Amino acid sequence: MAGEAPISASAIRMDADALNAFMAEAFPHSEPGSRGHVVAAAPGHIQARIDPNDKALRPGGLISGPTQMGFADMAAYALVLAHIGPVAMAVTSALNYQFLRPCRPGPVMADAYMLRLGKRLAVMDVRVWTDDPDKPVGQANVTYAIP
Amino acid sequence: MAGEAPISASAIRMDADALNAFMAEAFPHSEPGSRGHVVAAAPGHIQARIDPNDKALRPGGLISGPTQMGFADMAAYALVLAHIGPVAMAVTSALNYQFLRPCRPGPVMADAYMLRLGKRLAVMDVRVWTDDPDKPVGQANVTYAIP
Amino acid sequence: MAGEAPISASAIRMDADALNAFMAEAFPHSEPGSRGHVVAAAPGHIQARIDPNDKALRPGGLISGPTQMGFADMAAYALVLAHIGPVAMAVTSALNYQFLRPCRPGPVMADAYMLRLGKRLAVMDVRVWTDDPDKPVGQANVTYAIP
Amino acid sequence: MAGEAPISASAIRMDADALNAFMAEAFPHSEPGSRGHVVAAAPGHIQARIDPNDKALRPGGLISGPTQMGFADMAAYALVLAHIGPVAMAVTSALNYQFLRPCRPGPVMADAYMLRLGKRLAVMDVRVWTDDPDKPVGQANVTYAIP
Repeated sequence: MAGEAPISASAIRMDADALNAFMAEAFPHSEPGSRGHVVAAAPGHIQARIDPNDKALRPGGLISGPTQMGFADMAAYALVLAHIGPVAMAVTSALNYQFLRPCRPGPVMADAYMLRLGKRLAVMDVRVWTDDPDKPVGQANVTYAIP
Repeated sequence: MAGEAPISASAIRMDADALNAFMAEAFPHSEPGSRGHVVAAAPGHIQARIDPNDKALRPGGLISGPTQMGFADMAAYALVLAHIGPVAMAVTSALNYQFLRPCRPGPVMADAYMLRLGKRLAVMDVRVWTDDPDKPVGQANVTYAIP
Repeated sequence: MAGEAPISASAIRMDADALNAFMAEAFPHSEPGSRGHVVAAAPGHIQARIDPNDKALRPGGLISGPTQMGFADMAAYALVLAHIGPVAMAVTSALNYQFLRPCRPGPVMADAYMLRLGKRLAVMDVRVWTDDPDKPVGQANVTYAIP
Repeated sequence: MAGEAPISASAIRMDADALNAFMAEAFPHSEPGSRGHVVAAAPGHIQARIDPNDKALRPGGLISGPTQMGFADMAAYALVLAHIGPVAMAVTSALNYQFLRPCRPGPVMADAYMLRLGKRLAVMDVRVWTDDPDKPVGQANVTYAIP
């Protein structure tokens, strides 16, 4: 059974649909547009998308920092779950976010990459971007504790 | 006039009421309970409070990471504004958040302290706590770019 | 015996002398002036001092960033050891350093405070300063993994 | 003249030899083996190498955290200089280091990538590795202030 196999960074246990279904159930109170969803999942990498609503805007009409950080956290959470499966309760232990460029309104993408998946900690690199993945609006390092 | 004085970490230009009024106008789309408010402002320090609603909960019934990070960012933003005044447009350039303890439902407090207020960057230490300020649920380092 | 007691943030198992003796043995290759030493240890807090030599200077005659970061790491390591004792092998899992002010030549002090001492991770706040503890030259968040 | 052109992330002003010559002059007190050197420079990316000596070892025979952090800082400094040229005095404003895997003795490599080169701040991603670049021993986010 999958649940008995060791955790591995070279195989995933949940695909994009399974991840989205799990998160919709886990966060019943969050609104559409406030959380984003997974569009692709592969070993060591997931891609996510969010279509922020008006509540996500900050002065100047840009997408707010907390929206970006919450989205990066979601992408990292999905990447951990993809590898360890829906059984475990993982929690963020640290999130470092660098704001690099103005985040203009419209769809926002995130690419989350596994830097290291250990038994107790998963460390990930998340790039947040809008029109050009090579010019990210933000970059996050996210550490999750695995129970 | 206040607007012509040099920026100083030893005096504030906006008190708690002025800060709350400014932020309510700056973030017209945010709901009560999603942003928090300033309860006290002094040179080098502000204290803020948030009463998170159900949308702020994560699996396990705890207050979510993005809620905590957004609240820490708001406290840092208020601390910068308190010192530079409402005229300028400050933006977060980096936010590092350490999740230290489970954040149980109920009012959440933040104490934001100025580590350095420079001409171009403000670096702040923010402690987020619930029942005991000496046992913070989270700690943030927040850097704002000052235009 | 101390070694059998649970780890606690409210009592220390090693004082300044014991910490310095342990670290001198653990780092036999490091030179005087490159590592610093503990001057005081108490529950939740240690203070350390370093007298950097010429090799620690960077262009402009200031004390280099790596010297400051290494010193902050040493202070955090000593703070962990003070609480868990010399038996365990703790390793840094993350270190975030904010450079706040120029670090002028001369003795440098560090105050390391325990933010949370868990079973697996210790998270600490370290303030590095020269002449005025209220105007730190740097601030670090250091996370140690406890085996 | 190069000195009058605007700063650009798409062209470099110093190659590996020029960077190494500049840093040798800037850090006259540092020993061989304590600083590392640049092996390749291109727009947006430099690669560096260090051959740490015995003083760089920590308990357990691994390469110490401060050695890794100092090396990552050097790589970031070289990447900034490659783009802005030797005229300007850049200083680190923040360095966040994630320790991912044990760093075994032997040559250590760093790949530093520019995330954003602004007028006032440069933000970089640095990967530190030994035998396999896809399994980094450490990852750093480094921010430099550009005068």
